[in-house]
Amino acid sequence: MTAAVLCIGTELTRGELVNTNAPWLATRLTELGFEVVAIDTVDDDRDRIVDALERLSKRARVVLCTGGLGPTTDDITTECVAKVMGAQLVRHEPSLEAIRRRFEKLGREMSPSNAKQADFPEGADVLPNSAGTAPGFAVFLGEARAFFTPGVPRELERLWDEQIAPRLRPIARSTSFQIRLRTFGMPESMVGEKLAGLEAAHAGLTLGYRATYPEIEVKVLVRDETQELARQRAHAIADDVRTRLGSIVYGDGEDTFPEVVGRCMRARGYRLALAESCTGGLVGSLLTSCPASEFFVADAVTYANSAKSTLLGVDEDVLRAHGAVSSDVAQAMAEGVKRACSVDIALAITGIAGPTGGTPEKPVGLVYWAVAHPKGTVVRSRVLSGDRSQIQRMAAFVGMAFLREVCLDDERQSAVLRAAAPA
Amino acid sequence: MTAAVLCIGTELTRGELVNTNAPWLATRLTELGFEVVAIDTVDDDRDRIVDALERLSKRARVVLCTGGLGPTTDDITTECVAKVMGAQLVRHEPSLEAIRRRFEKLGREMSPSNAKQADFPEGADVLPNSAGTAPGFAVFLGEARAFFTPGVPRELERLWDEQIAPRLRPIARSTSFQIRLRTFGMPESMVGEKLAGLEAAHAGLTLGYRATYPEIEVKVLVRDETQELARQRAHAIADDVRTRLGSIVYGDGEDTFPEVVGRCMRARGYRLALAESCTGGLVGSLLTSCPASEFFVADAVTYANSAKSTLLGVDEDVLRAHGAVSSDVAQAMAEGVKRACSVDIALAITGIAGPTGGTPEKPVGLVYWAVAHPKGTVVRSRVLSGDRSQIQRMAAFVGMAFLREVCLDDERQSAVLRAAAPA
Repeated sequence: MTAAVLCIGTELTRGELVNTNAPWLATRLTELGFEVVAIDTVDDDRDRIVDALERLSKRARVVLCTGGLGPTTDDITTECVAKVMGAQLVRHEPSLEAIRRRFEKLGREMSPSNAKQADFPEGADVLPNSAGTAPGFAVFLGEARAFFTPGVPRELERLWDEQIAPRLRPIARSTSFQIRLRTFGMPESMVGEKLAGLEAAHAGLTLGYRATYPEIEVKVLVRDETQELARQRAHAIADDVRTRLGSIVYGDGEDTFPEVVGRCMRARGYRLALAESCTGGLVGSLLTSCPASEFFVADAVTYANSAKSTLLGVDEDVLRAHGAVSSDVAQAMAEGVKRACSVDIALAITGIAGPTGGTPEKPVGLVYWAVAHPKGTVVRSRVLSGDRSQIQRMAAFVGMAFLREVCLDDERQSAVLRAAAPA
Repeated sequence: MTAAVLCIGTELTRGELVNTNAPWLATRLTELGFEVVAIDTVDDDRDRIVDALERLSKRARVVLCTGGLGPTTDDITTECVAKVMGAQLVRHEPSLEAIRRRFEKLGREMSPSNAKQADFPEGADVLPNSAGTAPGFAVFLGEARAFFTPGVPRELERLWDEQIAPRLRPIARSTSFQIRLRTFGMPESMVGEKLAGLEAAHAGLTLGYRATYPEIEVKVLVRDETQELARQRAHAIADDVRTRLGSIVYGDGEDTFPEVVGRCMRARGYRLALAESCTGGLVGSLLTSCPASEFFVADAVTYANSAKSTLLGVDEDVLRAHGAVSSDVAQAMAEGVKRACSVDIALAITGIAGPTGGTPEKPVGLVYWAVAHPKGTVVRSRVLSGDRSQIQRMAAFVGMAFLREVCLDDERQSAVLRAAAPA
């Protein structure tokens, strides 16, 4: 069952407004089981609106159209619909009365221009708007069921909940099911290769990928004869995806990486402290974007060398001998903040985020991470690529992944610690 | 001169992603003088992509198309373009080489699936992508000039700046000019009221507002007989806007608030330290998103009370008597970090970001800010509204605004300090 969304308004085509109605409606339609095949936006132009309505009503069984129902001269959606239908505009007295009462209640007089908001194409199904002045309406455009709502998000959402969704539910028989898996730690192309052949092996399976730097979301969508069958198969395939991708799959649905890392800390009863340099507080900021007082003690963002010494007790000789971006200093930072804050586990990050400050030996993107832990301290390094913000973001995520790994996997942790410097 | 935008991706038609590329491109095209007549979105479906390309290339002189240039099987934009053109796909060796080098630099092997990112329709103008793997390209579809870019915002924006805008500028004969003013510190409705009547007073003026929490951008767009005339008038009107809005206008164009605050510090030769609690490192992270080593010394994110004492020397009796969210503790944090890091100026933030932890006396959203300064310490408080992330973001911005105010305005600063507690 196909659906299309049409958003009308010059403020959208000029880019003055981010269109949040479209994804909101697309999500609702997808949830109901519709396949959204187009989301189009046109300006307040008669010919282009008429053209889009004619086109979309031929392509989709349901068309949802927002905007252009206001009282001003550039609000022309209703007359365009009438033109497409070859119908007259007819005044709907109950709506006019409701608009008049609405203005009375606000202690204002209804302006004459508002009267046109009670005009509808003959035969329209008028949809009362409990959140604003302009009612919505529904008509048939050829074979397609078309719904029209104001562009104000609150009004649109109310009309959807109260009027449109109840009319669509009976005709939307969903036979698909989707599971979203969140991953960090592998580039998109490698994720794709690990899952190569999966689509060919399962009829009705569509794999989707979404990159939100530095993460990749994998979407497992299965279509089958019934939604229940699709659901069962989607879960089985998702398990296969998890096996193929291993520990880089950190959660699903609405999980976020910082939340999952926080959950690891809570599960272990660990209290955490951070010492950040090149990431400037980003890890702390990410970990405290959700409530974190159970495990998060402090983050010493020691940007200047002097602060590394005064706040963390990093030896000035070590700083001089190895430089702030070094394995020794990363280790000293992690151990320093662990000691200063009396915590179970500490992560330190020091590196060169750029764009300047790199040398042939220590290029921009070089980052050291250290995790200090009751059993010892582990240090790692890598040269990250990208611009300053990408290096910072990747450095923060790698640091959190390091913490998660140490927490999650005792066996791997022991292996890692065998190679580590003693605390 | 007409333009159309086409965004390709099932993540968009399913509503999983808010499409910020479309308004970004629409704004840029409008600035160049194009009339954007359509912004369409289709899913990763061969027929629908081909159909949209054929249709839009007939309706607009320029088509800008984003998405579907990745390495995975659902990335099919390029082959669809070739189909519309009736052209073969040809491997572009310099691009393949560039992709291979990019992977080498990352210390990784290029996966075979990435090779298809170097395939282009025969005759395409390849657009090197300095921000990512997949190059963009430009072709003629009938009369229309069509540009293709990855959907990753950063890559799209870079390709626009470096490759697409220079190609479009000569063919767009603009008679308009736009100035963007960045503001923080006043709600959108109040900004609108301060500028009421301006549009009526100036022919060809359109004011636009864009809210990016917690900032408001004001766009001054002037159309006139020539672009030079429009430019002159836009500058005059922008000056009027600056006067009406006062110090909440902090910059224009691509300025960001943290950058502007950093510039204030540099201008004064101030070295800065922070002590954050409820904002968890957000201020530090924002201020270090640009190079900051000239002024930024440290950020002590003392989330737990114990850390406020150990790292900042906040008196445990003060913590017990007044609670961590109090004027006294804010002041002690600011003075503590100023002393510990031997800096000129320090900002402390402590508050209740929620969703839990509020009481009738100290509700969720209550925040204290303190700035410690050679002449004394100033403390302020406010109850912020919104969810956790909004409270944290607003608290961080108010803190930075407080720093900017102290730095910028000696006279106002003296007035503020007259009312302040002595250091």
